[in-house]
Amino acid sequence: MSAAALARRRRDDLEIVCFERGDFTSYAACGIPYYVAGLVPSADDLVARTPEEHRAHGIDVRTRHEVVAIDTARRIVRVRRLEDETETDERFDRLVIATGATPIRPALPGIDALGVFGVQTLADGMAVHAAVDALGDSDAVGARRRAVVVGGGYIGLELAEALVLRGLDVALVEAAAQPMSTLDPDMGALVADALGNVGIELHLDEPVEAFETDGGHVRGVLTPAGLVPADLVILGLGVRPNATLASDAGIAIGATHGIVTDDHMATSIAGVYAAGDCVETHHRVSGRPVAIALGTHANKQGRVAAINASGGDATFPGVVGTAISKICKYEVARTGLNESEALDAGFDAVAAKIEGETRAHYYPGSTPIHVKVVAERGSGRLLGAQIVGEEGAAKRVDVLAAAVWMAMSAEEFASLDLAYAPPFAPVWDPVLIAARKAAEAATR
Amino acid sequence: MSAAALARRRRDDLEIVCFERGDFTSYAACGIPYYVAGLVPSADDLVARTPEEHRAHGIDVRTRHEVVAIDTARRIVRVRRLEDETETDERFDRLVIATGATPIRPALPGIDALGVFGVQTLADGMAVHAAVDALGDSDAVGARRRAVVVGGGYIGLELAEALVLRGLDVALVEAAAQPMSTLDPDMGALVADALGNVGIELHLDEPVEAFETDGGHVRGVLTPAGLVPADLVILGLGVRPNATLASDAGIAIGATHGIVTDDHMATSIAGVYAAGDCVETHHRVSGRPVAIALGTHANKQGRVAAINASGGDATFPGVVGTAISKICKYEVARTGLNESEALDAGFDAVAAKIEGETRAHYYPGSTPIHVKVVAERGSGRLLGAQIVGEEGAAKRVDVLAAAVWMAMSAEEFASLDLAYAPPFAPVWDPVLIAARKAAEAATR
Repeated sequence: MSAAALARRRRDDLEIVCFERGDFTSYAACGIPYYVAGLVPSADDLVARTPEEHRAHGIDVRTRHEVVAIDTARRIVRVRRLEDETETDERFDRLVIATGATPIRPALPGIDALGVFGVQTLADGMAVHAAVDALGDSDAVGARRRAVVVGGGYIGLELAEALVLRGLDVALVEAAAQPMSTLDPDMGALVADALGNVGIELHLDEPVEAFETDGGHVRGVLTPAGLVPADLVILGLGVRPNATLASDAGIAIGATHGIVTDDHMATSIAGVYAAGDCVETHHRVSGRPVAIALGTHANKQGRVAAINASGGDATFPGVVGTAISKICKYEVARTGLNESEALDAGFDAVAAKIEGETRAHYYPGSTPIHVKVVAERGSGRLLGAQIVGEEGAAKRVDVLAAAVWMAMSAEEFASLDLAYAPPFAPVWDPVLIAARKAAEAATR
Repeated sequence: MSAAALARRRRDDLEIVCFERGDFTSYAACGIPYYVAGLVPSADDLVARTPEEHRAHGIDVRTRHEVVAIDTARRIVRVRRLEDETETDERFDRLVIATGATPIRPALPGIDALGVFGVQTLADGMAVHAAVDALGDSDAVGARRRAVVVGGGYIGLELAEALVLRGLDVALVEAAAQPMSTLDPDMGALVADALGNVGIELHLDEPVEAFETDGGHVRGVLTPAGLVPADLVILGLGVRPNATLASDAGIAIGATHGIVTDDHMATSIAGVYAAGDCVETHHRVSGRPVAIALGTHANKQGRVAAINASGGDATFPGVVGTAISKICKYEVARTGLNESEALDAGFDAVAAKIEGETRAHYYPGSTPIHVKVVAERGSGRLLGAQIVGEEGAAKRVDVLAAAVWMAMSAEEFASLDLAYAPPFAPVWDPVLIAARKAAEAATR
């Protein structure tokens, strides 16, 4: 919808039609955990623009219409009207594919039981919200209600936080040895500590084998270590690009299962663009294609697709894998490559990790912050960074993301003129100290 | 002291002597306003390392010893022991000058009255703290006590906040038409609004002409607009490099009145280094020398001076003029050049200003943020940025400071992979939106 809206603003003369199989448009999927948590009062608050509002801006939005096929040669899409299952063909001159991502949902026994939820669409979020309401605070014998979140990535952790805030006992079940496997183990261990501190029961190294049910309703999650009881289960196993429609149309798909695009968001078929969670994009550090489902990339790509599809010229120059998350009072962020990713991408990588403070030590409210910086041995080029801390810690990753983006050296980074005043940072900002240590490590 | 401490860590074999005319070493001068405010309980909390602690680390610190002359030919300093006014000569192989800055103190009638304070040293801060204590909450007829801060720069505003927090009625008297004259007028106006919102009475365009006194004690500040009554006056008119000692020794001084150094912090005399508020440094955007009194530069320069003075090789690559401040719930920051500075430095500058939010609009605690970005017409090169907002706003200047440092274009900046999640930013971080608008302005 951001592509449609921008194309509309750029060109009065275009006919712009959008097909959406669901009921909503332009909603903040990233906001769903906060709606589930009760921090956002109503699901409507997540909707930036309704279909009616888009129509008022001259975009022909057709909800409950699913595109079931693309004919790139004849320049038509086949559209199924879900209301009555009728199908029609619609002609296009330019097409933007924005089919998003599909949650990973392993075919395990019991996964379709009542009380097991995926959280991908706004409708999913509303279903979870209602299910938590319906559970009540405690069961018939007065025990607190229990939720199990399966998957310890960003979405899993945000949903775990949401359920803690709703007053449930929460367990997190993760197949890997640490939560947030996109962090190095030493930083992941800090996240595990943080989860424990907010009362989340951790089941690490425990791949889910099945969901135990009773009368069709989930009662627990079965792992090699035993049964984790549950009144409610949320699947947070990540997503995969939803590129089936494009693939079926003969549009090139990459190794990540995302639609291949160039830096103009053009697919392998002339006049057909793609943007958002359905595409793969260029990682500027590893040089490899990656599929990263994130609203900020989707929006930027939608903008680029719209400009190019409407006769302009814009580029999406790739990503460096920046991500950020908050779990109660804890904050976590990363950018670039972690140590194992850097080695995997062929870099001779070194790393330095420091513990610092977010403010001058004497200023009230200073909190601990852990910063890890990964650099290339010899050149000292910044390859990535990870941050775990409390309030005011994680958004510091932005300056590291900019430096990684520009392939700045750790030594130059340590000289940067970053903002200093006691309420905001120590005399040496912790990111500068970490970079200096990484620069030293790179020359050893 | 940071130079001394690092030289000590680098080299066991050096004899390191430090002369300090005051009583304290290694204290956070930037923390004084927060001690005055009562946010920092004790002045001792601002002392990172006492003379005794330095001595325990093998540094021969001599407090209440003032260096009164440097003989660069004979490699000696003349030292006056303040206790008994005796003088001795001390030999050096390498010298680091770190004489700091001197507060600007115009020769106005009444400036030496009781109740008029400068705030430069820790002793000054303790005197102000005690004076506020002694004032009490109200005078004999029950009126609230009034403080006037003269000067609306960073220090003036931080002291105004401190006195508000101590329960005084506070007025700010500033000769310029806006507080924070290092911001453009449109951003300065936002700061003026913020000061009004926290109850500070603003007297702009009012140069101080005299201090009215009664029985030797200040009673008010006289400006062309009339008398601003005061029980206490704080001078926050800024500082000037204290380079007299160096100048008298024939060491080159620049147009900023700061000691001239190269990127190794070497002065015009071989083996003599200088660091901190007493030097001028290279502004990477304007290309001009600037004197900026800031603890973070002083520390970095001290480090570079120590490495070079102890046989190593390090450089200080200059500054981009980043600064940040907090006034109650408001935050202000800048980096690079503002519009008038950019024009003055010979750039054909354009600017864009946006109002955004610090978090996703639906996430609790999102606050307004104003971001202004200055860029070069044509190339779109980022020249500077200014931010005024509330919690979570100002430290965003860091990513802009890094981009200005690297002469990145506003267009490339707008594509940066900055951290996004609803508790931390909207899908388009406000700094990205401002950069995009500046990029558009640069091509018009």
